[in-house]
Amino acid sequence: MSLLKSWIASANDAACPFPLNNLPYGVFSVGDGELRCGTAIGDRIIDLTGLEEISTLRADPDADVLDAPYWNDFMELGPEAWATYRAKLQKMLSADAPEDVQEALTYFSLPLADATLHMPMAVSEYTDFYAGRHHATNVGTMFRGAENALPPNWLHIPIGYNGRASSVVVSGTDVRRPWGQLKSPDHDTPAFLPCRRFDIELEMGAIVGQFSDHPVTVQEADDMIFGYVLLNDWSARDIQAWEYQPLGPFQAKATATSISPWIVTKAALEPFRTDTPEREFELLDHLKDVGPMLYDIDLSVSMAPEGTEATEIARTNYSQMYYSAAQQLAHHSTSGCPMNAGDLLGSGTISGPTKPERGSLLELSWGGKEPLTLDSGETRTFIEDGDTLTLHGAAKGDGYTIGFGDCTGTLLPALSDPFER
Amino acid sequence: MSLLKSWIASANDAACPFPLNNLPYGVFSVGDGELRCGTAIGDRIIDLTGLEEISTLRADPDADVLDAPYWNDFMELGPEAWATYRAKLQKMLSADAPEDVQEALTYFSLPLADATLHMPMAVSEYTDFYAGRHHATNVGTMFRGAENALPPNWLHIPIGYNGRASSVVVSGTDVRRPWGQLKSPDHDTPAFLPCRRFDIELEMGAIVGQFSDHPVTVQEADDMIFGYVLLNDWSARDIQAWEYQPLGPFQAKATATSISPWIVTKAALEPFRTDTPEREFELLDHLKDVGPMLYDIDLSVSMAPEGTEATEIARTNYSQMYYSAAQQLAHHSTSGCPMNAGDLLGSGTISGPTKPERGSLLELSWGGKEPLTLDSGETRTFIEDGDTLTLHGAAKGDGYTIGFGDCTGTLLPALSDPFER
Repeated sequence: MSLLKSWIASANDAACPFPLNNLPYGVFSVGDGELRCGTAIGDRIIDLTGLEEISTLRADPDADVLDAPYWNDFMELGPEAWATYRAKLQKMLSADAPEDVQEALTYFSLPLADATLHMPMAVSEYTDFYAGRHHATNVGTMFRGAENALPPNWLHIPIGYNGRASSVVVSGTDVRRPWGQLKSPDHDTPAFLPCRRFDIELEMGAIVGQFSDHPVTVQEADDMIFGYVLLNDWSARDIQAWEYQPLGPFQAKATATSISPWIVTKAALEPFRTDTPEREFELLDHLKDVGPMLYDIDLSVSMAPEGTEATEIARTNYSQMYYSAAQQLAHHSTSGCPMNAGDLLGSGTISGPTKPERGSLLELSWGGKEPLTLDSGETRTFIEDGDTLTLHGAAKGDGYTIGFGDCTGTLLPALSDPFER
Repeated sequence: MSLLKSWIASANDAACPFPLNNLPYGVFSVGDGELRCGTAIGDRIIDLTGLEEISTLRADPDADVLDAPYWNDFMELGPEAWATYRAKLQKMLSADAPEDVQEALTYFSLPLADATLHMPMAVSEYTDFYAGRHHATNVGTMFRGAENALPPNWLHIPIGYNGRASSVVVSGTDVRRPWGQLKSPDHDTPAFLPCRRFDIELEMGAIVGQFSDHPVTVQEADDMIFGYVLLNDWSARDIQAWEYQPLGPFQAKATATSISPWIVTKAALEPFRTDTPEREFELLDHLKDVGPMLYDIDLSVSMAPEGTEATEIARTNYSQMYYSAAQQLAHHSTSGCPMNAGDLLGSGTISGPTKPERGSLLELSWGGKEPLTLDSGETRTFIEDGDTLTLHGAAKGDGYTIGFGDCTGTLLPALSDPFER
């Protein structure tokens, strides 16, 4: 696959994150205007709610699915409708589109720079996995020693836990340092204090696009996935350490989870499919790989203390995961658990085998023992007030780039009294 | 508080679960008719959607909040509106209500026996706690030995984990025995099999009635709670044992969670408030008791193999909990986790100190080692196909009863091939 040329010239640059090959789906507003569905191409947004209103481009001939501030209704139409709509949209934006089509779409377009981006979907439920082997090994080594780093089940099922959908926010949303109950190693009893070890987790989020209420195969699961976003699962490590046994992380993960604003469709990522790594234990039949279902997506994290330039602190690739989102979704459905359009599945922290490839500060600073030095000369173990953390992601094709839009957030200081209004 | 008399005679019986003192909120339909909001009184349902339509009784003068198949919009009006509405409704149903009011409400009533009951609310998100001390001690003893039964954090925070809202079903819904990945103690590797240790958990569910996006005090949390239901957190123990470390239960709890069909309001339960038990560790200030926030509610569980009469297998009381729902909600909010109307908080399994007071088969059969004998002469360790499990709950006042409606479900056999359609 090479660059598909668009009549929107800015989309034809090899470095542009939003070429005609991409066409990610998002929700935008301008000024105090209403929230509308759109796609990014080059430096423009096409107002797809508008194109539906005038029936120039409709996903469903009989019902409006984009007259809402989210893509859920569109998703529910299913894979065939997704493909048909994308093909039509791509044709209308391609370099050889008729002049009158170009005029109509120009009328329904606006500069990306003028828009505010919002959550692209209503998150039905949010599940976070723990499916990166290097991350699980690093964290397990710190918490339980190298001998017991991977729990006995880890190589057989993608370990996951339910997160809190209400806490998912779009990139650009500030995050307030939480209070929580925690116990210092040098104290006998816990205290209620602002978190001292606030962290990021570099993840990809897979968005389920269809309902199911029965177990699905890995292939069916892959078919159900609508697209992907970057995901930062902000984590309060000291709260987590005190609370997570025996039933898992709870308040440590409930302050916020940030996602990038554009849903990059599975269709756009098709050329970047890649296999999961080799396994020493064969997976059970219902979880076996049935094709390449990871993606070759370069990922990085940058950190910028207030008023300074950002420093890249980690660089890795989504293909480092041990389980694909399709395998995670298949596992998620085994119990008959009903899945819905808008369910968000966090991949788990993505770390590579070497130190600069680690997707969390917990790993990068090895539990706070090895501070990082930023370009500004400042050092960090965990996040400090005012720091801005940003995830970047891009799949690199032949003369083109599939970008996600950054996933960024700034940490605000804890409130002095969290109960004061 | 004694019995409040209604002009609906069947409501004035001391054993009737739905006297004028109760007025629980539910959603019903008749035949193929639409889903409507109603209240149960005696052996009747009052069609409250109908009373809103004709403006005889409105919660909001400007907006319809009961023209939906759930009580969420009503909840969002807040505690003052809840109280005003209840006072008006109680007056209209009281023995001294004017004749024309009685006539109007009779017109908008129907026999409870004719109605099908549905989920009373849209479950925004579902959180399950582990806040009964006897249950946690029993389970901890079985899994980790008596010395380590309670984890170090247990007496300091109400341990909870996020559940799966999509799996919550109304009483009467059949439950299909799930498949799952599990590992027998006598095997080296896991297998994908139908669950062999399917269980119940006797719980109360608290329904959050208001939005918050900041930490709330215990008193504020209590004010935010709209009402309570009975809740059965069906649990696949063998799947749970294999999956739950290190991040908590996941597919073991995702097949179904059943709730009773009527939301019993906090107002109806007011006379039954009772204190949490004595504690050896004082709670931190933000979790301290600020009044009686548990309730004296008698609870029991019955089991009926297919074609036999039910046997009562457990009897306990909600007052056995170590933490109130208000304390759980306060803890849930500490991180700034946004809470929404329709959030459901499971209390955790409610067990008393003695064997017949245990709220799960895991405890009743002590991990399957001590089978129960039912009245029919059959024995049980866990649930067998065709068994019907029912939770009952009642608060006993002076000459009246506050009932919840049963929370029941029948276990269907596992599918022979879970992926076949």
